[in-house]
Amino acid sequence: METDTIAAIATAMGEAGISVIRVSGPEAVPIVNRIYKGKKSLTEVPTHTIHYGYIVNPQTEERIDEVLVTVMRAPRTFTREDVVEINCHGGMVPVQSTLEAVLSAGARLAEPGEFTKRAFLNGRIDLSQAEAVIDLIRAKTDRAAKVAMNQHQGRLSRLIRQLRNEIVETLAHLAVNVDYPEYDAEELTGRFLRERCEGIEKEINRLLQTARQGKIYREGIATAIIGRPNVGKSSLMNTLSQENKAIVTEIPGTTRDVIEEYVNVRGIPLRLLDTAGIRETEDIVERIGVERSRRALEEADLVLLVLNYAEPLSEEDRRLISLAECHTAVIIVNKVDLPGQLDLEEVRSLIGDKPLITTSLKEERGIEQLEEAIANLFLLGKVETAEGTYVSNARHIDLLSKAKNSIREVIQGIDTGMPLDMVEIDLKNAWQFLGEVIGEAVAEDLIDQIFSQFCLGK
Amino acid sequence: METDTIAAIATAMGEAGISVIRVSGPEAVPIVNRIYKGKKSLTEVPTHTIHYGYIVNPQTEERIDEVLVTVMRAPRTFTREDVVEINCHGGMVPVQSTLEAVLSAGARLAEPGEFTKRAFLNGRIDLSQAEAVIDLIRAKTDRAAKVAMNQHQGRLSRLIRQLRNEIVETLAHLAVNVDYPEYDAEELTGRFLRERCEGIEKEINRLLQTARQGKIYREGIATAIIGRPNVGKSSLMNTLSQENKAIVTEIPGTTRDVIEEYVNVRGIPLRLLDTAGIRETEDIVERIGVERSRRALEEADLVLLVLNYAEPLSEEDRRLISLAECHTAVIIVNKVDLPGQLDLEEVRSLIGDKPLITTSLKEERGIEQLEEAIANLFLLGKVETAEGTYVSNARHIDLLSKAKNSIREVIQGIDTGMPLDMVEIDLKNAWQFLGEVIGEAVAEDLIDQIFSQFCLGK
Repeated sequence: METDTIAAIATAMGEAGISVIRVSGPEAVPIVNRIYKGKKSLTEVPTHTIHYGYIVNPQTEERIDEVLVTVMRAPRTFTREDVVEINCHGGMVPVQSTLEAVLSAGARLAEPGEFTKRAFLNGRIDLSQAEAVIDLIRAKTDRAAKVAMNQHQGRLSRLIRQLRNEIVETLAHLAVNVDYPEYDAEELTGRFLRERCEGIEKEINRLLQTARQGKIYREGIATAIIGRPNVGKSSLMNTLSQENKAIVTEIPGTTRDVIEEYVNVRGIPLRLLDTAGIRETEDIVERIGVERSRRALEEADLVLLVLNYAEPLSEEDRRLISLAECHTAVIIVNKVDLPGQLDLEEVRSLIGDKPLITTSLKEERGIEQLEEAIANLFLLGKVETAEGTYVSNARHIDLLSKAKNSIREVIQGIDTGMPLDMVEIDLKNAWQFLGEVIGEAVAEDLIDQIFSQFCLGK
Repeated sequence: METDTIAAIATAMGEAGISVIRVSGPEAVPIVNRIYKGKKSLTEVPTHTIHYGYIVNPQTEERIDEVLVTVMRAPRTFTREDVVEINCHGGMVPVQSTLEAVLSAGARLAEPGEFTKRAFLNGRIDLSQAEAVIDLIRAKTDRAAKVAMNQHQGRLSRLIRQLRNEIVETLAHLAVNVDYPEYDAEELTGRFLRERCEGIEKEINRLLQTARQGKIYREGIATAIIGRPNVGKSSLMNTLSQENKAIVTEIPGTTRDVIEEYVNVRGIPLRLLDTAGIRETEDIVERIGVERSRRALEEADLVLLVLNYAEPLSEEDRRLISLAECHTAVIIVNKVDLPGQLDLEEVRSLIGDKPLITTSLKEERGIEQLEEAIANLFLLGKVETAEGTYVSNARHIDLLSKAKNSIREVIQGIDTGMPLDMVEIDLKNAWQFLGEVIGEAVAEDLIDQIFSQFCLGK
């Protein structure tokens, strides 16, 4: 248990009806009580009750804000410590002044993620559940939220624990044999071990197969829209945004120009790259072109290449097509409402097996087909797990891969007749890697690193 | 009492630890209970208690978010109706999904300010107290928050009510005389009336004298920083921002380029104009200059004109000085760390009685003096009211002026020997105008207009 009491603003900053300051730790109640004026002393109220009153400057008795204070005593709280939440008026000055009052009454400013970290350290949730909290907060689509919610509910943790139990049982069996080799024939044990390991490998593989899909839900598909000027790139962006409520987020700590725009195409979050560039420079022929597209392509998972049906294929179009060659791409021939100048057969011969969609964004034609094509690229052959459990976190994927490799080595060890006590090491490694997913035996600095990615107040 | 139940997201949008959805109205508890899964039914829990559970899709039972739900039953609530607050995980998808669930369970999306409007309509607060809520949220300095808090506490309302009481007493006295003219000599009544009205006028004047100061605290001083390129405009802006924690707000509904930046100079909020312009174009000689400055000056309450000590006064400097002539301005001679080329006496002869401050922003010299000069311009001769009550709202100022004019007419009527029943009308008008400040006898469309300026969820 941590011994100090932490506080932070837990809601987003901005003008709003309510802002919440969260305080957690053994002194949470007395600290807030020092600056609270209400009917009752907070130290005497029952747990899980809410109280109207004022935050005051304890020296001057001056009222800082009118508030509702929630008192929640350990252990039935977010952190398993005593938690007090102060609902202030929204707006930056009242909430900042109230936070300052809480800090001068004895709390320490919480680090990002420190509340959730305490929930983890105090055993309320495991590490993969804690990581799901931040995924839930950052989710860009319903689907992403659902994947995160499932993980937060401990579904992934349960599967991981089952696998670890199987490994422990196998290890126990092995230990008996290693200690009492006369008890069982070595060969029989090897066969049993191989069988168990193949079962475990299959399970891990099943989880890893959800990873590509899980990552897509979690992070979105980095999507580059490329094409010559005036082919309809910004119309395409607007169409996608309007049809599918776009979420625009600014990335904190960077310049105002770096914004992320997400559109939700049939549950798949597309993260549109360089939207500022496209929106700003659509008309400025000189500023767009192959060079810019090349840069956008470097980080793209999906390329939407727009061609103009009303003009013959140009040298630049050809260069863009060849740029898109080694990417997952959809070729969009736009402006089919105009008389055709483009040789569609020629385009088809150049693009290989990439899908070609004809659209008139102006007349809203072909948009359904485009969305279908995008969905097919990413959902065909998808593994829909029964429980909706997806491995979406890069750290988890890495650990599962390592566990799988260790299991592989066990199997190979048996096949090459390695002594069983050597094989045991690899099996223990697999158990260890799986444990790290849920935060067992994880180094402290790794835990610090994971929680530092959280936002303040969580 | 309104009969429907309203709901809205009450916290600012963004990635955060907590978002709060507020629900108010007679059906608030049963509506939220329909989509809530926890240990107990919310319809059975005591008031002012908080409960852990899940928001679920009532059809599929699918968990949408893990929440804390606060149940507060009328009348001890923000709106005097039943209020339920749902603390969701922050982030846009969970909170939007939860709001959608609340709406499909039977609530209506609240209009901006509708919660506070209900608090007013249900008699918990009067109109000037309600207006203070939004001032508190928008406050840019501690002082502004304090002014708003005082108003929210009903200090202005109390003064207004006292004035109205005095008027009512005077009217009663007058009524006796009008109905029974033989009861008292007309002249005696006139003299009494005049005395009372002068007292009332004095009180109203005292309030109106706080208005300039109140408006400054509330809205900030629109400040233009002008000067030729490379004199140190952006250094000045950075210095002010660093010394006095700057608050940058984006104005919702406008393009990303319109931002407001506030700096707090000795309690006076300066709203810096055209900060994007200055920050972006400091080095680009062609893009800045007199034309741009002229536009910035149009809306400025305060001009900070920066001159370069290391160069002789140029033609452009002269033009900027004459532009600043009819403004409240401080002339800043920067770069006094460099060898002097500027003739300070010449500058003094051109700027009249405007304050001239010499600084070296690079060496952090002269900044104290600059802040002092700014403070003097706006605080000299200030009326510091004993109770800290300031009239800051343009609507209130307008109504107080009207009331004052009506009182003036009463006095003039008496002086010109107008019949007392004519004078009575003006006195009643004054009573009416003062009543509108606190929302008595205010037309419904005005109320709608006032509350529509609020943010959503308040």
